[in-house]
Amino acid sequence: MAVSRPVLKIVHDVVSLRRCMQGLRSSNQMIAFVPTMGALHAGHMALVERAKALADKVVVSIFVNPTQFGPDEDLAAYPHQGSRDRALLAAADVDLLYMPDALAMYPEHFQTEVRVSDVSQGLCGAHRAGHFDGVATVVTKLLLQVLPDMALFGEKDFQQLTVIKRLVADLDIPVGIIGVPTVREDDGLALSSRNAYLTEDERVVAPSLHRELIAVAIDIANGSDIKERCARAVDDLLGAGFTAVDYVEAREAITLSPLAGHGPEARVLASALIGAARLIDNVPVP
Amino acid sequence: MAVSRPVLKIVHDVVSLRRCMQGLRSSNQMIAFVPTMGALHAGHMALVERAKALADKVVVSIFVNPTQFGPDEDLAAYPHQGSRDRALLAAADVDLLYMPDALAMYPEHFQTEVRVSDVSQGLCGAHRAGHFDGVATVVTKLLLQVLPDMALFGEKDFQQLTVIKRLVADLDIPVGIIGVPTVREDDGLALSSRNAYLTEDERVVAPSLHRELIAVAIDIANGSDIKERCARAVDDLLGAGFTAVDYVEAREAITLSPLAGHGPEARVLASALIGAARLIDNVPVP
Repeated sequence: MAVSRPVLKIVHDVVSLRRCMQGLRSSNQMIAFVPTMGALHAGHMALVERAKALADKVVVSIFVNPTQFGPDEDLAAYPHQGSRDRALLAAADVDLLYMPDALAMYPEHFQTEVRVSDVSQGLCGAHRAGHFDGVATVVTKLLLQVLPDMALFGEKDFQQLTVIKRLVADLDIPVGIIGVPTVREDDGLALSSRNAYLTEDERVVAPSLHRELIAVAIDIANGSDIKERCARAVDDLLGAGFTAVDYVEAREAITLSPLAGHGPEARVLASALIGAARLIDNVPVP
Repeated sequence: MAVSRPVLKIVHDVVSLRRCMQGLRSSNQMIAFVPTMGALHAGHMALVERAKALADKVVVSIFVNPTQFGPDEDLAAYPHQGSRDRALLAAADVDLLYMPDALAMYPEHFQTEVRVSDVSQGLCGAHRAGHFDGVATVVTKLLLQVLPDMALFGEKDFQQLTVIKRLVADLDIPVGIIGVPTVREDDGLALSSRNAYLTEDERVVAPSLHRELIAVAIDIANGSDIKERCARAVDDLLGAGFTAVDYVEAREAITLSPLAGHGPEARVLASALIGAARLIDNVPVP
């Protein structure tokens, strides 16, 4: 007797994708979409679980988008774990996996770019030239290819989430964008595919990023001078063993404009290098 | 007894628009969309007629988009004829008119731009800085607000039509783009809302633009040197009474790259000023 195992349906091009979507959409089913770059971990699976709770059908994409990596960044080294990813998604009972290849996404004569200005400036935008243009363009494409009712993104990439919310509102893309809280290791380290780059020693240092952000957020809530406190956090992180610190900043949570006073909607964000790995994290100001 | 008159349904915001679209879309009706800047003439009505022939329902928008006008251009003077436009659309039995105001299209914190590179370069792009970024962004928004099956644009604005085809393909907007041949006066002058700017004397000069383009296209088809022939056309137009000539160029019809040899898919395009009016026109190379 055959044992029933979850079978994961996979498509690789827009035509097949749209045919499948028509099937999923029949009888007005709610569809949720989780775009990823693969190398799935519990953070991605939390997005999938939330998607399953909110919608009838869940579509996941895996596409390592070359246009959001700078020339000196880790595109070639970016972790791939295709069969493990597929097993995880099959076990989670995902309805459709979309895995376009780069030529299907960027054919000959491709020449259109989506640019979000203000919220792409500063923070990671200041250290990764063109990164958010690449993100904005590929996410616009993926949303319009899949046309789900909602799409879910992790709060770990808080500036990316903000850029996406902005472009969806500005271009009137008829998709709801839902941010999902960051999933962390027991010691506070935010889950990230790039954690795979950490050596054993670096892994010991890494959680101090989250600890420092929590401390900064509490101090700001208690009235500390924002600029001074963020500057001290940079020193603390370097002292804790980080190789370099791109930024530690407090921003208004919706517009990402620099935090002037002590409003309720604020976020502390940081990016720091430890060896080959650029780690980012952020926490709300309580 | 009441006489039955066509009633034009009009909406002014995205929420009302989407509610109406849901109604129009019921029972799988094909929907065609004709975006305009108003000041409707027989060229626009040809788009509407073609839309009615191709689809079950026709939606028209009127929006004079400020972001596609340069600081020295004719935004403030652009012709308005609201009640005449509405009467024309009602008589043509259009199903829905969408007239958003500028703040509904560009609310506070709006900051996203769609840019198409290669086909926006040169021709009108060289003389109207930012124009095609404004066009690409507003057309993306309108298409995603209305989400029709198809949208129709005039070939009179040939570079605009090319930019729109490119961005729709590149961003995977699920809308078919249909170009409709230019409608002309008996003397060949392409219909344009901007013809209203012409004085009586200028109106006599204006048709020589089309005559010259036809002559250039025939000469190129017959083997004339492309560069020389276009340069001569500039002199001819100045001699005929045009104030200035932005360009007369032959381009590959799909990519708009400069025409190297004598292929079948070529187009001759021109822009010339006559008094306050910038006239554009284009013809295929036979």
